[in-house]
Amino acid sequence: MFSDILQGIVEQSGGGIGISLMGYDGIAIEQHLSDYDEVDLQLLAVEYANVLKEVKRAVEVLNTGFMEEVTVKTGRFLVVVRALNDEYFVVLTLTRDGNIGKARYLLMREAPKLREALA
Amino acid sequence: MFSDILQGIVEQSGGGIGISLMGYDGIAIEQHLSDYDEVDLQLLAVEYANVLKEVKRAVEVLNTGFMEEVTVKTGRFLVVVRALNDEYFVVLTLTRDGNIGKARYLLMREAPKLREALA
Repeated sequence: MFSDILQGIVEQSGGGIGISLMGYDGIAIEQHLSDYDEVDLQLLAVEYANVLKEVKRAVEVLNTGFMEEVTVKTGRFLVVVRALNDEYFVVLTLTRDGNIGKARYLLMREAPKLREALA
Repeated sequence: MFSDILQGIVEQSGGGIGISLMGYDGIAIEQHLSDYDEVDLQLLAVEYANVLKEVKRAVEVLNTGFMEEVTVKTGRFLVVVRALNDEYFVVLTLTRDGNIGKARYLLMREAPKLREALA
């Protein structure tokens, strides 16, 4: 169930190389990783769990409403993170030339289904 | 000099409510804050300095290239952060209905000028 939704997002995103549904503790519930071997996608997801914990903390301190989405652009990758609820989020990694707008759209569209599957 | 560039970005961004040029230590070099009083923009910039430090650390661990840009969408705000060099970055805050694409474009376009002014 999770698996199909996640695989669909990677395949439709254009430039998608991996996706993880994971908890703020850095433990993945489900992943779909392509054969892209230039980076450890597992490690990447865990590192982004730390980033997201820090964003979540900042957002709570600032009282600026629910954290929805974080994107990070580096020299080699685009990463889009979407919070699902207080415990879980999705991390989608794209190659640098990927379509970040489409990735954000797909995660927004599929988030309710993932939340439902988690309930 | 900084001041004019920063003010121009806020004014052109559409929904821009504040901008800070700051170091990873959380100390602002220059700010341009509107009268928007529903959030402490100073505190917001400092909190995002912490977030960015964590992103920077993750990017270094993962060796995924230079960190360029981070965006965060919450229930109330959009925040676009653009790294200028190893020491400084810019944080632009927009209202939730702001134009994140335009904000990203303006920061990308003005980054070289800000880097030059810092040198």
